[in-house]
Amino acid sequence: MKVVVLAGGVGGAKLADGLAATLPDEEITVVVNTGDDFEHLGLHISPDLDTVVYTLAGVANPETGWGRAGDTWNFLETLRSLGGPDWFRLGDKDLALHAERTRLLAEGWSLSDVTAHVAQALGVGPRVLPMTNDRVGTVVETADGPLPFQEYFVARGCEPAVVGFRFEGAAAARPAPGVLEAIGEADRVIFAPSNPWVSIDPILAVPGIRGALSAKTVVAVSPIVGGRAIRGPAAKMFSDLGIQPSAEAVAVHFREVLKGIVIDEADADQEAGIRQLGLDVRVTATVMKTSADRRRLADEVILFASSPAAG
Amino acid sequence: MKVVVLAGGVGGAKLADGLAATLPDEEITVVVNTGDDFEHLGLHISPDLDTVVYTLAGVANPETGWGRAGDTWNFLETLRSLGGPDWFRLGDKDLALHAERTRLLAEGWSLSDVTAHVAQALGVGPRVLPMTNDRVGTVVETADGPLPFQEYFVARGCEPAVVGFRFEGAAAARPAPGVLEAIGEADRVIFAPSNPWVSIDPILAVPGIRGALSAKTVVAVSPIVGGRAIRGPAAKMFSDLGIQPSAEAVAVHFREVLKGIVIDEADADQEAGIRQLGLDVRVTATVMKTSADRRRLADEVILFASSPAAG
Repeated sequence: MKVVVLAGGVGGAKLADGLAATLPDEEITVVVNTGDDFEHLGLHISPDLDTVVYTLAGVANPETGWGRAGDTWNFLETLRSLGGPDWFRLGDKDLALHAERTRLLAEGWSLSDVTAHVAQALGVGPRVLPMTNDRVGTVVETADGPLPFQEYFVARGCEPAVVGFRFEGAAAARPAPGVLEAIGEADRVIFAPSNPWVSIDPILAVPGIRGALSAKTVVAVSPIVGGRAIRGPAAKMFSDLGIQPSAEAVAVHFREVLKGIVIDEADADQEAGIRQLGLDVRVTATVMKTSADRRRLADEVILFASSPAAG
Repeated sequence: MKVVVLAGGVGGAKLADGLAATLPDEEITVVVNTGDDFEHLGLHISPDLDTVVYTLAGVANPETGWGRAGDTWNFLETLRSLGGPDWFRLGDKDLALHAERTRLLAEGWSLSDVTAHVAQALGVGPRVLPMTNDRVGTVVETADGPLPFQEYFVARGCEPAVVGFRFEGAAAARPAPGVLEAIGEADRVIFAPSNPWVSIDPILAVPGIRGALSAKTVVAVSPIVGGRAIRGPAAKMFSDLGIQPSAEAVAVHFREVLKGIVIDEADADQEAGIRQLGLDVRVTATVMKTSADRRRLADEVILFASSPAAG
């Protein structure tokens, strides 16, 4: 069964890792948000692509979810001692990927070629594609004015109240090579438990992707569990926008593209309401703490996506 | 006694360090070759400036002469595993300086402002100035064609036979702010035991510097001892150009600007020949292995430069 996973960072990476433990590598394509990509110290940084690639390569830092296991911080500590900007945490090993990507992009490589090259060097099996090779920048509209995503997320700690989102450059962006083909060939498309507003929506904002999904069976895994995000600002974003954060709110957000949604046992009481939206629902344990959790959730998601109701 | 030292990398850094142990910081200005500066991985790297600053800050790697003591190599090893260019040895701490310099230059800072900022952050006392804030690139003309200095030096291991040198951009370069003033105020100017061809000559190629020296008492320390360079390709460069490498050859090379030269005891037999060039000579131990060596040589150089014959 061929699957395409739309993914942001940690949640998407974990689910993709679970799928890779279940399905043959060649049946998995992960399409990753690049709206958080930014330039820092002259380096092109792709936080979500890196988290997905590191996780699938088995070299991700298990404590942080981002960056590499066993990394060191001599670069960052020295940068700080020189008065340089230390707000973005760059490990010494992690930095090498940013430098090499920046170098290859400057040589004219596309982001998808760089990603494939890095994935191969790190021994990643499933195909990992950026949503686009064009520049799309997520801007968080806040009470303090518009903020580029990393500034909102890292520098401001998600503190300013969100009033909306903008994906700069999206209208002119093209899906990266292989994205529409993978969706076209996919038996199922899965929205990973990633932030709806700033991980999945930027992917859907790339012209052609939403349309390609309309012919597909699409299921989501809710990133909101018990009214909270497993990690990151998704719940706060719902709240700031005047929406009670819940699995049901995620279902409402994506109702036009989804056939079904996987929600956590903690949210079982929302099943009926979601079914009233016309969506199928699977209730299961969705929090991925261990490798076994990842695989079990992946199995559940595949079973659910293959069931007659969702399909 | 105010001194200006013209310096390349390790030899210049060590002599400057010896001078800093002898003279008050405010009496020392080190004017450093930037002809070896280059772009690598998008970073502006200034090898000689860094060696001088690290040495004066007491954080230089005592084994290599370049880079920082106790540095780690996680960046470089990871870069290599990704198939990236690993021919230039970049330690994790060292990298932070290149990144911060690159960032500040991109913000519009001059190289001399960056250098002053870094020197202050690292607690360096003497003033360290790049020879110019303009781009001057040392090109080594070889039997294999012209090679940018770093490619000749690091990537090609100084192997191609040298037929000449070119300092691209030098004709249009201006001395960095403070360079001509420091020379004008100096009681003595010292050529460090640095490579005449690719460390001192690029400095002299910046319009205005050679002229400013003509009014000054200038003494050199020979980087050639016993027919060999203490380090680096200086001796091979002399040989490739058909000149027997010797302290006397260094004296001949600089005879128009020098009043005197400090040569090693190993070369005492060359004293008479150098005196016939009209230069004063001091014979002493010039190889700096320890901090005490640096200071002793600095004391000797100052005494020599202050002596009536040299002055």
